[in-house]
Amino acid sequence: MVVKKSIGVGLMGLGVIGGGVAKVLMGKPDTLAREAGSRLVLKKILEKDLNKHGLLGIERDIFTTQFEELAGHPEVDIIVELIGGEHPAFELIRDALSRGKHVVTANKEVMSKHWSELLAVAQEHKVSLRYEASVGGGIPLIAPFQEDLVANDISAIYAIVNGTTNYILTRMAKEGLDFSVALKKAQELGYAEADPSKDIEGVDAAYKLAILATIAFGTEIKPDNVYHEGISRLQARDFRYASELDYAIKLLAIAKRVEDSVEARVHPVFIPEDSLLAKVDGVYNAIHVEGDLVGKVIFYGEGAGPRATSSAVISDIIKIAQNINRGITSPPRLFFAPGRTVKPMDEIETRYYVRMSVADQAGVLAQISKILGDHAISISSVIQKETDPSAQTAEIVIMTHPAKEQAVQQALKETERLSVVREISNFVRVEA
Amino acid sequence: MVVKKSIGVGLMGLGVIGGGVAKVLMGKPDTLAREAGSRLVLKKILEKDLNKHGLLGIERDIFTTQFEELAGHPEVDIIVELIGGEHPAFELIRDALSRGKHVVTANKEVMSKHWSELLAVAQEHKVSLRYEASVGGGIPLIAPFQEDLVANDISAIYAIVNGTTNYILTRMAKEGLDFSVALKKAQELGYAEADPSKDIEGVDAAYKLAILATIAFGTEIKPDNVYHEGISRLQARDFRYASELDYAIKLLAIAKRVEDSVEARVHPVFIPEDSLLAKVDGVYNAIHVEGDLVGKVIFYGEGAGPRATSSAVISDIIKIAQNINRGITSPPRLFFAPGRTVKPMDEIETRYYVRMSVADQAGVLAQISKILGDHAISISSVIQKETDPSAQTAEIVIMTHPAKEQAVQQALKETERLSVVREISNFVRVEA
Repeated sequence: MVVKKSIGVGLMGLGVIGGGVAKVLMGKPDTLAREAGSRLVLKKILEKDLNKHGLLGIERDIFTTQFEELAGHPEVDIIVELIGGEHPAFELIRDALSRGKHVVTANKEVMSKHWSELLAVAQEHKVSLRYEASVGGGIPLIAPFQEDLVANDISAIYAIVNGTTNYILTRMAKEGLDFSVALKKAQELGYAEADPSKDIEGVDAAYKLAILATIAFGTEIKPDNVYHEGISRLQARDFRYASELDYAIKLLAIAKRVEDSVEARVHPVFIPEDSLLAKVDGVYNAIHVEGDLVGKVIFYGEGAGPRATSSAVISDIIKIAQNINRGITSPPRLFFAPGRTVKPMDEIETRYYVRMSVADQAGVLAQISKILGDHAISISSVIQKETDPSAQTAEIVIMTHPAKEQAVQQALKETERLSVVREISNFVRVEA
Repeated sequence: MVVKKSIGVGLMGLGVIGGGVAKVLMGKPDTLAREAGSRLVLKKILEKDLNKHGLLGIERDIFTTQFEELAGHPEVDIIVELIGGEHPAFELIRDALSRGKHVVTANKEVMSKHWSELLAVAQEHKVSLRYEASVGGGIPLIAPFQEDLVANDISAIYAIVNGTTNYILTRMAKEGLDFSVALKKAQELGYAEADPSKDIEGVDAAYKLAILATIAFGTEIKPDNVYHEGISRLQARDFRYASELDYAIKLLAIAKRVEDSVEARVHPVFIPEDSLLAKVDGVYNAIHVEGDLVGKVIFYGEGAGPRATSSAVISDIIKIAQNINRGITSPPRLFFAPGRTVKPMDEIETRYYVRMSVADQAGVLAQISKILGDHAISISSVIQKETDPSAQTAEIVIMTHPAKEQAVQQALKETERLSVVREISNFVRVEA
C-alpha cells in the first residue's frame, strides 16, 4: 500500500455548486485527509470567469480557462465536473477519462444520456467515474443501490427527485395557490429558474429516474425512454378534490419491473394522503424503493443546493482517493439483464382521476359511462362537484379502477367529442 | 487481481435470521456471484440443533456443533455470526477474527459492548469486521455513515430503532390502548418476545444508538453511557393529551453533539405531530441524521425480520468477497476525536410534559409554579384536564420551556411532597 501524500483535484465549473465544493475542500482539510488517507489539494479550476477567485479567496494562478491546463496537469488525479448541461460537459468528461483521470460528476443529463459510452471509456482506462450527486443531492442513493441493496431484486421505485416542482406543489396544496402563482413565488425565492421548463415539465426528474432505474433494474434506460409529463396543468381545485378523496398530489418518478419489462415514467400522481411520500414537503426529495429482501426503504433529504451536493461530491472524491491509496482501480461496473425492455406508456395500467366540465342536464353520466365501459374502464366513484348556473355546466370528478393507459386516452378523446361535455379539464394517474 | 472461484461462508446460528440468510445464499447464487465476483458457498453451519437441515434442504454434513470445525475449515473465508446475545457470540467472533477469518455479524449487543477489542483484533489480523445489520435491519446505515456522509460533521441523530416498541406505541396512539394491552397484542403477533424487557426498557435501542453515535461522532460510546428509559409508564391518556397538543409520542434514540460533549439517550419523547418521524408507524424504523453539509437526511425501512436482515448481512458478505478478489484487506477503521465525553443525563436541557394528579382546590397551581420557578423552570402552558369529583382531584398537564434535567427531577420530587399533589403521574421529554 503506497499512500500518496496528496491527491490533486481539478475542478471544472465554479458556479454555485462548484463554489460549494471548493469551499468544503479548502475548509475542512484535516477531516477530509483523515478519511481519504491523503490531503486533497485543489490544483486547478477551469472557469471562464477568472475573477471568481476573489470571492472564495483562492489563489489566482490555479484558475485557468483552458481544459488542457487542467486535464494535462500531472498532479491532477481526480477531475470534478460541475459545469452542468450536456455540452461541453460530456466531451470534457470523456476526454478526462480517456487521459486516465478519475472523474466525479453531479451531471444527471450527461450521465443519463451518455452512460454506456462513458462507462466504456472509464473501464478501458481503468479509472473511476462516480456520480452520487447526480440524483437526490446529498442523499446517499447511488452507493446504497449499488453496494448496500445489491442482494435485492428491486421491484419498484417511487421518487420525488425534483425540489422545484415539489416546492410548487406543496404551496399549491397548502395555500390553495394556482400553478402560475406558486411558480412565481418559487422563482422569487430562487427555488425555480427563470426558465423553469426542465423542472416543470419533468425533464430533470426523467434524467434522474433514468439513472436510478438503470442501476436498479440492470436495464439501460435512456431519458428518451422515460415518459414525462409536467405539473402545469394542475389547478388549485385538483388539490381540493384530491384532499377530499384523501389523496395528495406529487410529481413522482416511477419505475417498476413488471415481468420482463420496465415501466419508467414521470408525471403528477394522486398518492394516499397518509403515505410518507405525501408528507415530503417543500424542496425535499424522497426515494421509495422496494426490494424482495429489504421490503420498503425510503431515503429522504435535500435534493439540491451547494452544501448537500458537496456532501455527495466529496464522498465520491474520498472513495476514489482511498482506492488510489490502496493501489486498486475501481472502474464503474454495471450488469445489464438481457431482454428487458421499457414498456410503452400506452401499455401501463393504473387508476385515473378525471375532472371534466359537462352540461348540467340529465343523462350526461350515462353517456360518459357508456364510453368508459366500451373501453373496459370501470368507474370506482363519481362525484358531481360544482355547478355553474350561468353557464349551465357542472364539474364532475371520476375515479376509475385500474385500466390501461391507451384505453383511457382513447375513451377521453371520445368523451370530449360528446356534445354534453364542455372539456376534459384534467386527468391524473393514481398510485395506491 | 486473482479472482477466487468460490468464497466459503461459515454460518454460526441457524435461527430465524440465520435461516433467512442461508435461504438467500442458496436461493440466488447467480445474482450473488455476479455481484461478489465469486460464487458464495455455504461451507459449514454451526448449530446445536442438527435436525434443522431438513427444514431448509441443506446437506446434513455441512452442519456441525463444533466451532473448531467451522473456524478451522480451510475453505471458510467469511464467518457470519447470527447467534445473537453477548456470550458466546463475542468470544466466537474474537476467535474467528484472530484466526484470520473475516466476520459479518448482526449482533448489536456484542458490537456495542466490545467494539474496541474486536476492532483491534480485526486490525491486527488484517481482516474485515462488518455489522451493517446490527442497526436498522436492512436499511443501509452503517455504510452510508462511514462512507457516504463522511465529509459531514454530524450534529444529531434522532432514531426509531426498535420495532417492537414502535408497534406498541402505534397501537396505543391509534386505538387508545393501554400499554399492557398493546404489549399483549404485539406478543400475540410475534412482534414482541415472551420476555420483552430488553425492547420495552430501551436496552435494545441503547445498543443500537451506541453503535450509531460512536460512528457518527468518533467518540466511543458504550451502552452503559447511554441513558435509557422504557415505554411502560405511558398511558392511553398521555397519547390523548399529546395529540391535543399536536404531538406524537415515540421512543427515540437521541444522540447530539453539544460542543465537546455528546448526549446519548433513549426515552419516550413528544415530537411534533407533523414531523416525518411521527408518521413512522408499526414495526418500521427511521433514522434522522443532521450533518453540516447534507442537512437533514432520513433513512426509513424495516428494522428487523429475516429477509430485511439478510439484505444487510449479504451486502456485507459481498463487500468482503469483492475485497478478497481485489486482493486488498479492509479492516475496520474508526477515528476517535480526542476529548469528547458523554454528557451526564442530569445536564441535558430539554422541554418537559408533566402530568399530575392534584387536589381540586384553589391555589394548587401557585404552589407548583413556585417550586418550578425556584428551580428556574418556566412553564409554557398548563391545562387542567379532568376532575374526579368523588376523589376531589383534578389532572393537570404542564408543558415547560427548556430546562435542565436535574432541576426538573428535583422540582418534581419537591412537587410530589406537596400535600395538594396526589401523584406525579408521568413526565415525558419534548423535542422540537
